[in-house]
Amino acid sequence: MPDTLERAPTRYVDSGGLRFAYRRLGPKAGIPLILLQHFTGTMDAWDPAVVNALAARRPVIAFNNAGVGTSSGETPDSVEQQAADAEAFIAALGLKQVDLLGFSLGGFLAQVMATRGAVEVRRMILAGTAPRGGEEHLLQVVEEAFARNARDVRLPLFFTPSAASQAAGAAFVDRANARASDRDPDRGEAVSNPQTQAIIRWCAEPDPDHASLKAIRQPTLIVHGSDDTMFPSINAYQMFKNMSSATLIIYPDSGHGALFQHPETFVSHVETFLGA
Amino acid sequence: MPDTLERAPTRYVDSGGLRFAYRRLGPKAGIPLILLQHFTGTMDAWDPAVVNALAARRPVIAFNNAGVGTSSGETPDSVEQQAADAEAFIAALGLKQVDLLGFSLGGFLAQVMATRGAVEVRRMILAGTAPRGGEEHLLQVVEEAFARNARDVRLPLFFTPSAASQAAGAAFVDRANARASDRDPDRGEAVSNPQTQAIIRWCAEPDPDHASLKAIRQPTLIVHGSDDTMFPSINAYQMFKNMSSATLIIYPDSGHGALFQHPETFVSHVETFLGA
Repeated sequence: MPDTLERAPTRYVDSGGLRFAYRRLGPKAGIPLILLQHFTGTMDAWDPAVVNALAARRPVIAFNNAGVGTSSGETPDSVEQQAADAEAFIAALGLKQVDLLGFSLGGFLAQVMATRGAVEVRRMILAGTAPRGGEEHLLQVVEEAFARNARDVRLPLFFTPSAASQAAGAAFVDRANARASDRDPDRGEAVSNPQTQAIIRWCAEPDPDHASLKAIRQPTLIVHGSDDTMFPSINAYQMFKNMSSATLIIYPDSGHGALFQHPETFVSHVETFLGA
Repeated sequence: MPDTLERAPTRYVDSGGLRFAYRRLGPKAGIPLILLQHFTGTMDAWDPAVVNALAARRPVIAFNNAGVGTSSGETPDSVEQQAADAEAFIAALGLKQVDLLGFSLGGFLAQVMATRGAVEVRRMILAGTAPRGGEEHLLQVVEEAFARNARDVRLPLFFTPSAASQAAGAAFVDRANARASDRDPDRGEAVSNPQTQAIIRWCAEPDPDHASLKAIRQPTLIVHGSDDTMFPSINAYQMFKNMSSATLIIYPDSGHGALFQHPETFVSHVETFLGA
């Protein structure tokens, strides 16, 4: 029986004084898909329905970046340093060429890694993210979400108020909570404070001509929710318009967690894109 | 061996004094996908790579609307009457429920048919089209395309100037020209004049609050080219924003014929959508 995100053992790899925790799924051969996680998220915060389905055809690697969950070190307060840590992790695994799936903050890292050349990025998926200088409402949206006192803060944060979206959100939360043992610890403000700084700085950094986006040459799949309150869908449209080889997909009645609201559709779109 | 668009016999069905020519592909059972064709296009103008692949899983029906190609009657100069003719054709086949793929002008018809109730439309794909009151550059773009004296006017009309897009366009033209016998005749200005009227009227009709789009309840897949010169991609974005259940997909480096530039990707996206 193949490993799943819920059952795969957590492994560790060392690089430059840091110890990175990761889980590797899927076949040994093939270009690995590296998952770059959202604000405060650990490996356990990925959707098993998405990750396990993607791992049916290719190696998929989830990891905790420096300072997050079971990885050692401190969380840096800049996207660039977080990207450098992710590059160090990938290099420590001896991977020459990778695909990237960057969700939210993870999508910022993917954009940086795509052009820096430290790791050869073949293709990437940018989900629920924003370009340098993009529009963010992080603090307000997170504050409002916590004030809702929902069963899981991701219900108001990642899904729309509609019954259909909330039902999909509840199913996602159940899937993400299914792993019973060896779950990643929440390191609290030691992660959220520097990651908040990194997100706000990234979006405050002016890039009026979108030079950062124009420098990206890799085929890119941009996936966004119609009603993402944290990073509005205009971010996805701007990325699409300023990248040389981007496909834009926006799902209906969906929020920041659109990729987890429509897991089968999202997986199908990613497979079509990575296999093209 | 299953029928293909290139080999399927042309059949005829009568309704209210009109004789409609059509070709039916794929299995007998299942919800048929009805193809609604673009400005001046006949059945032969569909891409066999798209149509045959879609017919692997579902009935697919191409037809010539009133006055076009081998169908009798005159081409009406309004979208509403063209939609009524398409509804009469579908009713004459005895079909109770259909999916629609409307390309360009065909997408106008699909939008009208979705809310009129004469035919039960389950889901629809709108490719390279525009809403009522949308932005069109038909006459200028067609004039400039003919002035290029290309091997086939669809090369400048449907594809971008890039080498990759033109190569994909040449492959499409070869595929569309593969049918050797019983090709549909071009009825010239008897079709192009009233269809031009219909297109210009549709886009000139004000619908500032997009009431027409908001009335559509069916799940809809909107597919557009990044650089569609005839109906710019802002049309797709406006349709997406004003429909209750629309998914938006925009392909890179592609023009009005984006669905024929990326046939395998487009078919995969349509299958994912119709099967969801």
